[in-house]
Amino acid sequence: MGDVTIGLLHPGEMGAAVGQCLAGAGHRVLWVPEGRSAATAARAEAAGLTAVDSLAALAQQAEVIVSVCPPHAAVDVARQVAGFAGLYVDANAISPATAREVAAIVEAGGAAYVDGGIIGSPPVGPGHTRLYLSGTRAPEVGRLFEGTNLEARLVDRDPAAGAASAVKMAYASWTKGSAALLLAARALARAEGVEDVLVAEWAMSQPGLADRSARAAGSAAAKGWRWVAEMEEIAATMAAAGLPDGFHLAAAEIYRRSRHSCGPGLEEVLAALECHAQDRSVEG
Amino acid sequence: MGDVTIGLLHPGEMGAAVGQCLAGAGHRVLWVPEGRSAATAARAEAAGLTAVDSLAALAQQAEVIVSVCPPHAAVDVARQVAGFAGLYVDANAISPATAREVAAIVEAGGAAYVDGGIIGSPPVGPGHTRLYLSGTRAPEVGRLFEGTNLEARLVDRDPAAGAASAVKMAYASWTKGSAALLLAARALARAEGVEDVLVAEWAMSQPGLADRSARAAGSAAAKGWRWVAEMEEIAATMAAAGLPDGFHLAAAEIYRRSRHSCGPGLEEVLAALECHAQDRSVEG
Repeated sequence: MGDVTIGLLHPGEMGAAVGQCLAGAGHRVLWVPEGRSAATAARAEAAGLTAVDSLAALAQQAEVIVSVCPPHAAVDVARQVAGFAGLYVDANAISPATAREVAAIVEAGGAAYVDGGIIGSPPVGPGHTRLYLSGTRAPEVGRLFEGTNLEARLVDRDPAAGAASAVKMAYASWTKGSAALLLAARALARAEGVEDVLVAEWAMSQPGLADRSARAAGSAAAKGWRWVAEMEEIAATMAAAGLPDGFHLAAAEIYRRSRHSCGPGLEEVLAALECHAQDRSVEG
Repeated sequence: MGDVTIGLLHPGEMGAAVGQCLAGAGHRVLWVPEGRSAATAARAEAAGLTAVDSLAALAQQAEVIVSVCPPHAAVDVARQVAGFAGLYVDANAISPATAREVAAIVEAGGAAYVDGGIIGSPPVGPGHTRLYLSGTRAPEVGRLFEGTNLEARLVDRDPAAGAASAVKMAYASWTKGSAALLLAARALARAEGVEDVLVAEWAMSQPGLADRSARAAGSAAAKGWRWVAEMEEIAATMAAAGLPDGFHLAAAEIYRRSRHSCGPGLEEVLAALECHAQDRSVEG
């Protein structure tokens, strides 16, 4: 391996780290600077990516396209390279149904679809990140990452597209869903004027939970805006499986409110959850 | 102390253990066998409780009434002793709004209201259970439990009734809400055919979560039916505070389905969650 031309859409924090893995393995990794920020350009350069002029040029030169983008953008990104006839890997946090929508779009344009889902932090070091892959040509994609910080794992049971996305949805349904629930629990105690009592009870019978809620607040303030659509994708996945979608619609609301936080601290995030609630009660 | 006549409504698993604490402290603890099961009678006898003929007799003899019952029954239990003129303690898992409803009922009958909330397992041993109490006369109630397995903790900030109930709601919003969310996450992976992949990923990056999901299933099968109303009380508490109620409406649905489990095992509970989902899709 190490001689494949790969188009990366797009080098955000996660995407750039994925691109760096591929570039480090000797592949030529293309990206399109047009319309992207200076921060993105700096990340792409640091990751060893090669700029090309347009999505059309990228689609023409690449043998493989890897989509790593916010979940709400996954379908549009697929449409933007319509006509690409190589191997299209969607590695986004989307529902199996959205994955099948992306598959239909790229297959209609002549590409082969491989479903993916990334679990863990951006793969800038070894052992922290897995790329789940499903679909007939998943093994080819897995080989592109051999020896890199991103461990490819094949999910070999997928008649329709979507098994790798399902793994991601089920995994994040707990990690990000429980973080939102924990923030809601603490916000509730605060709204009722008993936060200190709750925290003292936690210290006795739920050790670690107070710290965990503070970490959840920091993550929500920094990244919650990206998780709103992911929670909505999980809610849709739950509903499609006949399970309650309420956990993750509520989690989406928590992360939506977290965007209004004035800072990464627990106080600031809880204030944003409460303040936005007050806005709503005035409206409603 | 040790010389107070207390009416207990009713000696279920938690109630009997609370009654045993009070009887062990030397109080006379009354209960009403009429219409209760043989199992309840056996529990009451083992706890050292004294049977009386009717709720009217209990209300007449008792100086204090302690209500420990399923949350959906809390308001009815208060109505059943209307006219009681002593100290009424509601120790149930109800929202602050429901607590205020109970307070209004008993106060209209001439009683004083103390709000309570129990956190922990039935207090059959020391150090595992707290009774949170709020309201003007909460200290009197706390003294009844001095030296017992049930540690009374005063929540001293309650202009209206409900602070102790709020502590219970916020605490259980995490413990029982997160257990339901974890079951939903695993049920989702199973429905999508990737449960083994999720469990393998958990083993690497979320150690202990697979065991925790199995314990959650056992609890849901055994006690989930009692938690449906508690989850609905928490959802109402969230909504009243302007926070999303979806987490706990979804948790109520998970526990509602858990009742249909054929046994306490993880397999049986997940099958019940899935089977009931299929019922719903046929209906809808």
